[in-house]
Amino acid sequence: MDVKDLFESIKKFEGKEVTLEGWVRNNRNQSNFGFVDFNDGTYFKSLQLVYDKELKDFDNISKIRVGSAIRVKGKIVKSEGSGQSHEMKVSSVELLGDSPEDYPIQPKRHTREFLREVAYLRPRTNLFNAVFRVRSVAAQAIHEYFQSHNYVYFHSPIITAADCEGSDQMFKLTTFDLNNVPKDEKGNADFKKDLFGKKVYITGSGQLHGETYALAYKKIYTFGPTLRTEKSNTKTHANEFWMIEPEVAFCDLNGIMNIEEEMLKFVIKYVMDKCPLEMEFFDKFVEKGIIEKLNKVLNSKFVRITHHDAITLLKEANVKWEFEPEYGEDIAKEHEKYITEHFNGPVFITDWPKDIKAYYMKLNPDNETVAAVDLEVPGSGELMGGSQREDDYDKLINRMKELNIDYSEMDWYTNLRRFGGCYHSGFGLGFERLIMYLTGIENIRDVIPYPRTPNNCDY
Amino acid sequence: MDVKDLFESIKKFEGKEVTLEGWVRNNRNQSNFGFVDFNDGTYFKSLQLVYDKELKDFDNISKIRVGSAIRVKGKIVKSEGSGQSHEMKVSSVELLGDSPEDYPIQPKRHTREFLREVAYLRPRTNLFNAVFRVRSVAAQAIHEYFQSHNYVYFHSPIITAADCEGSDQMFKLTTFDLNNVPKDEKGNADFKKDLFGKKVYITGSGQLHGETYALAYKKIYTFGPTLRTEKSNTKTHANEFWMIEPEVAFCDLNGIMNIEEEMLKFVIKYVMDKCPLEMEFFDKFVEKGIIEKLNKVLNSKFVRITHHDAITLLKEANVKWEFEPEYGEDIAKEHEKYITEHFNGPVFITDWPKDIKAYYMKLNPDNETVAAVDLEVPGSGELMGGSQREDDYDKLINRMKELNIDYSEMDWYTNLRRFGGCYHSGFGLGFERLIMYLTGIENIRDVIPYPRTPNNCDY
Repeated sequence: MDVKDLFESIKKFEGKEVTLEGWVRNNRNQSNFGFVDFNDGTYFKSLQLVYDKELKDFDNISKIRVGSAIRVKGKIVKSEGSGQSHEMKVSSVELLGDSPEDYPIQPKRHTREFLREVAYLRPRTNLFNAVFRVRSVAAQAIHEYFQSHNYVYFHSPIITAADCEGSDQMFKLTTFDLNNVPKDEKGNADFKKDLFGKKVYITGSGQLHGETYALAYKKIYTFGPTLRTEKSNTKTHANEFWMIEPEVAFCDLNGIMNIEEEMLKFVIKYVMDKCPLEMEFFDKFVEKGIIEKLNKVLNSKFVRITHHDAITLLKEANVKWEFEPEYGEDIAKEHEKYITEHFNGPVFITDWPKDIKAYYMKLNPDNETVAAVDLEVPGSGELMGGSQREDDYDKLINRMKELNIDYSEMDWYTNLRRFGGCYHSGFGLGFERLIMYLTGIENIRDVIPYPRTPNNCDY
Repeated sequence: MDVKDLFESIKKFEGKEVTLEGWVRNNRNQSNFGFVDFNDGTYFKSLQLVYDKELKDFDNISKIRVGSAIRVKGKIVKSEGSGQSHEMKVSSVELLGDSPEDYPIQPKRHTREFLREVAYLRPRTNLFNAVFRVRSVAAQAIHEYFQSHNYVYFHSPIITAADCEGSDQMFKLTTFDLNNVPKDEKGNADFKKDLFGKKVYITGSGQLHGETYALAYKKIYTFGPTLRTEKSNTKTHANEFWMIEPEVAFCDLNGIMNIEEEMLKFVIKYVMDKCPLEMEFFDKFVEKGIIEKLNKVLNSKFVRITHHDAITLLKEANVKWEFEPEYGEDIAKEHEKYITEHFNGPVFITDWPKDIKAYYMKLNPDNETVAAVDLEVPGSGELMGGSQREDDYDKLINRMKELNIDYSEMDWYTNLRRFGGCYHSGFGLGFERLIMYLTGIENIRDVIPYPRTPNNCDY
């Protein structure tokens, strides 16, 4: 039985003897009795085990060290102490796996930096147990939202031969021995000898492939790992992260904003419903007020403002900027922060200058802006980025030419505009950003089990 | 509105006017009236649109080509024809996106080989629309099974510096220009200059990392893309595929078999419940009797047989083998086939010779076999492979030494046996094999949206 099942029907088990297997989080004892904080990882709260001198194994039990795996039998009874409604009166304990005196995770406060060094043990702490359960539950929330709205979960390939994103930003993938790359007559790498017979990369996005399936299923979403080569050592960048990329046919920019808003609220509500103990813990120890913040989001209508109007707002603000806001230019972190604080909630910024956005975004009638939207949230900045896609074949090709994008092998993408093309939109959601937003954790390294960042690929 | 929502409450819409957007699968007409097979991809069945000469646009509508995207308004009425209970009496049609005369997907039978060549259009056919919807629904079934049983969805890293699987089998990942790899003084690739400052690979399995989280959460599962460099051009191998890897603490080999069996039945039932039209289609056109086959699995108890007894069974069979079955050796495709046909259902083969299995599998008391299990299913062969893991620190290290596995940087894995270690087990399920089993499709290239196989990485 899982401790979760026990706690969720605790009344049913009152007076009953149960057997549980799990780990010792703490073991305190006096001469006549002792307490074990027992946790099997399925539930945030530990179960208190009470054992006393009557047990013939008392001495052995009292020596069981923190971190050990045990099998315990006992009766579930109402607790006389404070801090828990029920506890287990132990009848026997079996040591399944010992733990040494120098076990790194002791019942005290460890810094997050230290816990990153023992990343393989950190999910055994309260904080990370909560973070990675929320991560799992939020992932399920995303699947349930899309599946219940008729979306098809599309598995986009991650190996690709198309370098349409600019191969500098993409990892190269090879079976070659890099100490000894086979060469052709010209002295270049002879990719004919590689597994796929050509040069291949890891895609940084599933969007283009996603569009091909959206134009068959109307609504699709991707959800998988994404690798990017950015050499950014910031709190919000990692080289491996998970991303969700929905794509919807017969949907314009307003439609996609509606979906983003509805989905985010669904996920927030789902996580708060399923992880009340974890959310309480974050509220107390990670980001005070996070529950109130999220509840407010549930009950608000997200603001929608054009990039142009956002710049005007920033220019009129009585603030000394590090980067002066300018029409036609990107928005800095400090601007995002000001805007979300100004509106005191999530804000959609729409209709961005075309020159700072991607080629596949739909050109607006002004010929200057594109139908793109970023969702900015208080505390985390940009959470989602989306756009209506350029569905005019000629305009798309022109834009690719202007930006020197090699479209010679991309007819499968451009043809979508010739074969029953239609207005369609999509967005990308960085899953780690979402988890940071939901937990209050400030560093992306603390919401990915094994983070990969520049010069850091341990475990 | 989605066509799925319409069909699922069709009675409610009787006599109502609705607006739909989707694609023309076929358009047949005579001088006074015409029929469009209309499909928006959210539902397997097409909606029949009926339009007649009364419409001022009759001539334009009758010329709309197959593949075009349209917006249609009309009233839902009971159908007088056979083949459908309801249809739409059209009041107006708007062409949103034209399709040319030479559009590749015409209302006729296309070969699967041809459709692989236009992989970006094949989900617009009945067959592939069904396959990839089932793929999506089966993925959700897997998530629902594990989430509802207290598992944590664990996102295993795919970039790794540990070459514990043998680096020959793993893709190398780099940001280097392969035409010009930076060299150190010794003339070797200078990985200090690469993004992670060291040589990195793509893992072929999330199991080892999964174990670290199972020993914190008790129950975890992974579900993500997996890349392997196998140069196999068979119907069941691809270099990129999706895999599910559950890992469960306090679980032995029998326990993991119970989970495999329960999970598989859950997924089968879920898909049959959610995709009845698709399953009917497969039963009719892909694998006759597949519904009966799957129903039988639901109602059976899977056979469990040791590898030793399976070899005895094969030796005693009155069959001329291509590969003679031998104790201590692997089981060939023809043997798998015989065994599943003999028992007429899924079969667990347990306790394999240690020399043909991985180092991390638990050594049995006989010192010859390991607590490993393969699940063989009729038609598809090996569907899942699992084992109880070696939880004895010394035995694990010995086995790694015997097999010359470099464990110098794997203390995060081996230490799991020192820090509250416990008996634990897990398995791997190749998601594409499952989809082949559920749909009757025989080639893995037809159950992955964009297959990657040796010398094949298009799109």
